[in-house]
Amino acid sequence: MTTKTPNAARRSEASRRAILTAAFELAGEIGYAKLTIEAIAARAGVGKQTIYRWWPSKGAVLFDAFLMLSEGQLPAGVGDGGEAEGEAAVGDTAAALPDTGDLEADLKAVLRATVAELADPRYDLPLRGLTSEIMHDADLAALYAERLHEPVQEMKRTRLRAARAAGQLDPDVDLDVAVELMWGPVLSRWLMRTAPLTEEFADSVVEAALRGLAPKA
Amino acid sequence: MTTKTPNAARRSEASRRAILTAAFELAGEIGYAKLTIEAIAARAGVGKQTIYRWWPSKGAVLFDAFLMLSEGQLPAGVGDGGEAEGEAAVGDTAAALPDTGDLEADLKAVLRATVAELADPRYDLPLRGLTSEIMHDADLAALYAERLHEPVQEMKRTRLRAARAAGQLDPDVDLDVAVELMWGPVLSRWLMRTAPLTEEFADSVVEAALRGLAPKA
Repeated sequence: MTTKTPNAARRSEASRRAILTAAFELAGEIGYAKLTIEAIAARAGVGKQTIYRWWPSKGAVLFDAFLMLSEGQLPAGVGDGGEAEGEAAVGDTAAALPDTGDLEADLKAVLRATVAELADPRYDLPLRGLTSEIMHDADLAALYAERLHEPVQEMKRTRLRAARAAGQLDPDVDLDVAVELMWGPVLSRWLMRTAPLTEEFADSVVEAALRGLAPKA
Repeated sequence: MTTKTPNAARRSEASRRAILTAAFELAGEIGYAKLTIEAIAARAGVGKQTIYRWWPSKGAVLFDAFLMLSEGQLPAGVGDGGEAEGEAAVGDTAAALPDTGDLEADLKAVLRATVAELADPRYDLPLRGLTSEIMHDADLAALYAERLHEPVQEMKRTRLRAARAAGQLDPDVDLDVAVELMWGPVLSRWLMRTAPLTEEFADSVVEAALRGLAPKA
């Protein structure tokens, strides 16, 4: 499909990674509003035209940076913020949520890791930038839903499906509603900054949600 | 505190209202990203300098427009999108959520009205603009939390407090967690556009949340 020589393709791929790494780092350092194509180009050591040839906007660059991050392709140290096991927010390369058999403990671990990640400026600022773009751009939102959201959503559904099969959730539970019942409150508190986003809050949300989704007596 | 004559004060107030009305309407028509101080000034029939004298940014203008809307001071037809009774999102001038004694029916009515409002372009676009500003500006977020969020939050808490006193909710329920459990999923689905925001979704969220918050058997 390409007429590039192997060496040229390798150089392109190296430039692409340098650009995406620079975009992610800079968004975390200065925030999305101040992010410019010029600054990304300077940090990545490429010309501005190289970036404009591959991406139409800084939002598109940042989206691809998150995609690379979600695929575990960012260099060591970038986007490596979550220490907790079972993390399932952005930056996770795990293929599944933890399943110890203790649904409440598993979900609390995952949601606490999400809270920790959202409190980390390396994620907080780029994620606010990406979210802002998604909010205003329906096309980017569709791309986000398909490429970034859906794989993680399916991991969450899979864990809840196993719990439902084990009789820990009501057989009629809608898995997407169940996921939203836990992640929605965390996301909304993070975005709107209406109250502190704490581990205790995450725990309370998981406890109330699981009671609400439990098999009917 | 002012040296203005009564007539000058009245003229100032009329200009202020014209500016805020124009900002809200334009944000709903063209979206926040394309909103400019120039366009607001032109629509309001004032000079740009009048706006800059009173507000530091278009985000600040839009914030005050929402504040005026929440106080029921926007002219007829502006921000008058919610027909459902018991609406308690932006634009509501009611002092309380409905209380028919049927908690589930009351909350479903309110959350369905919120869904309808978020689907109305007249609210959707300005609200995305305001939300975006809040996400990136911690000072504006604090102002939002105090002036716009807290009064509505207290209305929601009041309805849930009455239900808790009537034995319809567990006595240990944290009212802020309870509110977030219902509004968080709706807000998050609206913002991220990850799935259709329907009345059925709102109903499912209310049902699961209320089961989770019910008195322990």
